[in-house]
Amino acid sequence: MGLYQLSKAGKLCVPAMNVNDSVTKQKFDNLYCCRESILDGLKRTTDVMFGGKQVVVCGYGEVGKGCCAALKALGAIVYITEIDPICALQACMDGFRVVKLNEVIRQVDVVITCTGNKNVVTREHLDRMKNSCIVCNMGHSNTEIDVTSLRTPELTWERVRSQVDHVIWPDGKRVVLLAEGRLLNLSCSTVPTFVLSITATTQALALIELYNAPEGRYKQDVYLLPKKMDEYVASLHLPSFDAHLTELTDDQAKYLGLNKNGPFKPNYYR
Amino acid sequence: MGLYQLSKAGKLCVPAMNVNDSVTKQKFDNLYCCRESILDGLKRTTDVMFGGKQVVVCGYGEVGKGCCAALKALGAIVYITEIDPICALQACMDGFRVVKLNEVIRQVDVVITCTGNKNVVTREHLDRMKNSCIVCNMGHSNTEIDVTSLRTPELTWERVRSQVDHVIWPDGKRVVLLAEGRLLNLSCSTVPTFVLSITATTQALALIELYNAPEGRYKQDVYLLPKKMDEYVASLHLPSFDAHLTELTDDQAKYLGLNKNGPFKPNYYR
Amino acid sequence: MGLYQLSKAGKLCVPAMNVNDSVTKQKFDNLYCCRESILDGLKRTTDVMFGGKQVVVCGYGEVGKGCCAALKALGAIVYITEIDPICALQACMDGFRVVKLNEVIRQVDVVITCTGNKNVVTREHLDRMKNSCIVCNMGHSNTEIDVTSLRTPELTWERVRSQVDHVIWPDGKRVVLLAEGRLLNLSCSTVPTFVLSITATTQALALIELYNAPEGRYKQDVYLLPKKMDEYVASLHLPSFDAHLTELTDDQAKYLGLNKNGPFKPNYYR
Amino acid sequence: MGLYQLSKAGKLCVPAMNVNDSVTKQKFDNLYCCRESILDGLKRTTDVMFGGKQVVVCGYGEVGKGCCAALKALGAIVYITEIDPICALQACMDGFRVVKLNEVIRQVDVVITCTGNKNVVTREHLDRMKNSCIVCNMGHSNTEIDVTSLRTPELTWERVRSQVDHVIWPDGKRVVLLAEGRLLNLSCSTVPTFVLSITATTQALALIELYNAPEGRYKQDVYLLPKKMDEYVASLHLPSFDAHLTELTDDQAKYLGLNKNGPFKPNYYR
Repeated sequence: MGLYQLSKAGKLCVPAMNVNDSVTKQKFDNLYCCRESILDGLKRTTDVMFGGKQVVVCGYGEVGKGCCAALKALGAIVYITEIDPICALQACMDGFRVVKLNEVIRQVDVVITCTGNKNVVTREHLDRMKNSCIVCNMGHSNTEIDVTSLRTPELTWERVRSQVDHVIWPDGKRVVLLAEGRLLNLSCSTVPTFVLSITATTQALALIELYNAPEGRYKQDVYLLPKKMDEYVASLHLPSFDAHLTELTDDQAKYLGLNKNGPFKPNYYR
Repeated sequence: MGLYQLSKAGKLCVPAMNVNDSVTKQKFDNLYCCRESILDGLKRTTDVMFGGKQVVVCGYGEVGKGCCAALKALGAIVYITEIDPICALQACMDGFRVVKLNEVIRQVDVVITCTGNKNVVTREHLDRMKNSCIVCNMGHSNTEIDVTSLRTPELTWERVRSQVDHVIWPDGKRVVLLAEGRLLNLSCSTVPTFVLSITATTQALALIELYNAPEGRYKQDVYLLPKKMDEYVASLHLPSFDAHLTELTDDQAKYLGLNKNGPFKPNYYR
Repeated sequence: MGLYQLSKAGKLCVPAMNVNDSVTKQKFDNLYCCRESILDGLKRTTDVMFGGKQVVVCGYGEVGKGCCAALKALGAIVYITEIDPICALQACMDGFRVVKLNEVIRQVDVVITCTGNKNVVTREHLDRMKNSCIVCNMGHSNTEIDVTSLRTPELTWERVRSQVDHVIWPDGKRVVLLAEGRLLNLSCSTVPTFVLSITATTQALALIELYNAPEGRYKQDVYLLPKKMDEYVASLHLPSFDAHLTELTDDQAKYLGLNKNGPFKPNYYR
Repeated sequence: MGLYQLSKAGKLCVPAMNVNDSVTKQKFDNLYCCRESILDGLKRTTDVMFGGKQVVVCGYGEVGKGCCAALKALGAIVYITEIDPICALQACMDGFRVVKLNEVIRQVDVVITCTGNKNVVTREHLDRMKNSCIVCNMGHSNTEIDVTSLRTPELTWERVRSQVDHVIWPDGKRVVLLAEGRLLNLSCSTVPTFVLSITATTQALALIELYNAPEGRYKQDVYLLPKKMDEYVASLHLPSFDAHLTELTDDQAKYLGLNKNGPFKPNYYR
């Protein structure tokens, strides 16, 4: 985000690669990794059983999609909130009810934010949650849950173990807040080495490309990683799955108008 | 494809919208629709039971992803072939073995093509399939299976019902060819009205945009549907799912640097 | 059912096998077969898209479990009604909300009965369904939906195609009734030959057992198929999946107190 | 097991309840609990990413079914070994290849035992595993993996963290052995309080029943928990899911030949 704003303001003094939005990095860091770390983060902190739990996930981007797929698979009943109609429609097609947070806040057992937005969970929502409701954040920053609003005299905080606070209302109701609203996947879970490898490879290749590029290929702007490099990162990680790629014949490459070594998709393909 | 080639050749004499690659259209026509029509097409033609069947799906793009998700969910064991390492890696993460067609061709019960390529299933593959193997095409054209190679004197064709041919080898082996290699979803299944509505709405909005656009906004080139229109198509279809969108507060919109009415995502977001 | 009642009344004049409750027969006829035929039956009659649809399934026995698994996998949102707390708890753990029919009848797109009970869907429920709601029966008989209650002067019936009636309320609301409330899977879908083979094999083995049994082994009562025969039926069908059984070593058989050739489980094991 | 053997030998001097095989207890302790604890146990010990991993699960009983469902849902490719043809056929229908352990031992990333048997994973298997293969046990005892065979001079053991040993072959190959072959779910994961509640309630009710039963109802034998009590345990746990049971009408109860308060199923129903 910051890079694009710098660029727009004409303040970017070197070419930059938006590594984060390369397909491979994006899918691994967000979709595939979060599909596992949401379970891991919740289990390690709360030992909650997923089966039968009602969960609301705020945001159905890649992170939200990953969280929802895992929770649904383990028997949770998942609701989605969204601002973007395209993501909302995807949530419908994947079998989730799209609701406003207020509609379900009294009944859910777990609230998970993955929006990149701020104050998605407000004090008003927190006031209405039921006893023992778990609240955590899988999004981009620590702004999604309005944790500041919980630091008021009438509420008592009780640290029950590392990264787990009980916030206690005057009537005895407890809300279980994880990692004080910071990122659950970084605070309470681990990142598999495989994901780190994808990320590090993508970043290294981007730097190599910028360094080696002939003068003039890149201006003082933000670029997406060239598709071919994105494909290269992926291909380097296939052998660990014993995956065998098919090669185009000359005839097929000609038919498709592609180089046999890629890139295989237009740049906008995800 | 054709439009981009015309444009490249300088032969496109009006602006054009690549409606096919709008997110909503793409996901519905390909992913969500095929997830259902692969089951429907196979059942109506062959009454095959999916549970326990070994299936190879050639191509893990949106169509392939849809087919695989449905077949896996119904208990089939699915193998993937891919030329693109990014799609191949996605297949791995979704729990499918990525193989060359030759590795599994002797053992599978069903072969499905979704590549957009030609001669993906060759006579050599067909010769090696086991008795009763079902072969069909969910891709973009009728070129994916080399059906012509089956029209030779030593093989007997037997039409067993509409859209279903048994091709019989001299030793009695039968391969079950559906729709003579044409599109299964168009030939042997129906398209839900909901999907038609998405497609028609997208096309209509694209035409309206081209017609109403101020002179100069669009040149003689191919454009992706503006994100905001894509979002509009989606929003028009949410009420049928009783889905409730969340609206940004002024403060949130400012924080995210977005207009409260969208577009909510960059153009390259899928 | 009838057999047990005859037996209880002392009116059963020969030994009988309750073939229907053998594990293999039960799972195939009910769970595995219905998992596929619910989709097939709905598609062939109504071309409904499953993604995003709200469905209530009455009864979470084997048939209900099969229907729900398939619909959930294809993106439907599924609610369950149950009378049995054990089945209800299983539904919870599988990620379904357990409700009374009245709670969701106004909002659902599809109603499916699989209870074996009568008048599960009453005229009152039918009156409250929304326009275009689809109603069908996957249970044991044609009693589950009170179809008789729909044959009244103020409602108009319109046959829109074979097995599909629109029942039209005075205000224009239409309910889509499939197979006039008879079994959807028998009326509007096909039974795979594989399932027929399981059923026929089980029945044949039961007859052979009764015929060959030494005098006195079976009295004038109802028996479950001996576990070993149930296992034999299963083993006869494994080769079609190229499945390879593991054999116990002598040492392992002794450790487990089992015969190396089975039966491998106690009779009550399902 | 022990109780039935005592009973057979005429050495059981009091009535006993086989609480373990009540439906509710069985499903929670085995199926639902293991579905979650296999993920938790593997993550906490090894941080393995599940997506794309090849896993062999020995035994497809309730524990195996739970493990496989979770791993499949998170993108692992799962193979099954089985001795019982009925369970093997179920594995086929659920989309798993049924193999002998030798067929896949060289290629898998994780080996999980859930058989209740002994020496299911032998030294010969361990010798053939690939580098970094993870081996663990989810079954009934610590006999399933022949750990003793690994305590030989040519192999080096390295404790890398609590419950995790690397066993190192002379050529440098490492096998990752969890909990020294003891139960992973007890050693490396936690049991949710909800599961404990189910188990404790079942045991308490069984004791109450035995204590309160009129003289003569129970002899010196082993009994399954009466269905009605099993149903009662389930019904006590429904409110925590906000699940609403449907009640039979008088007419329906009569039609089904059931008491309105249960039991709702024959004793052999699972």
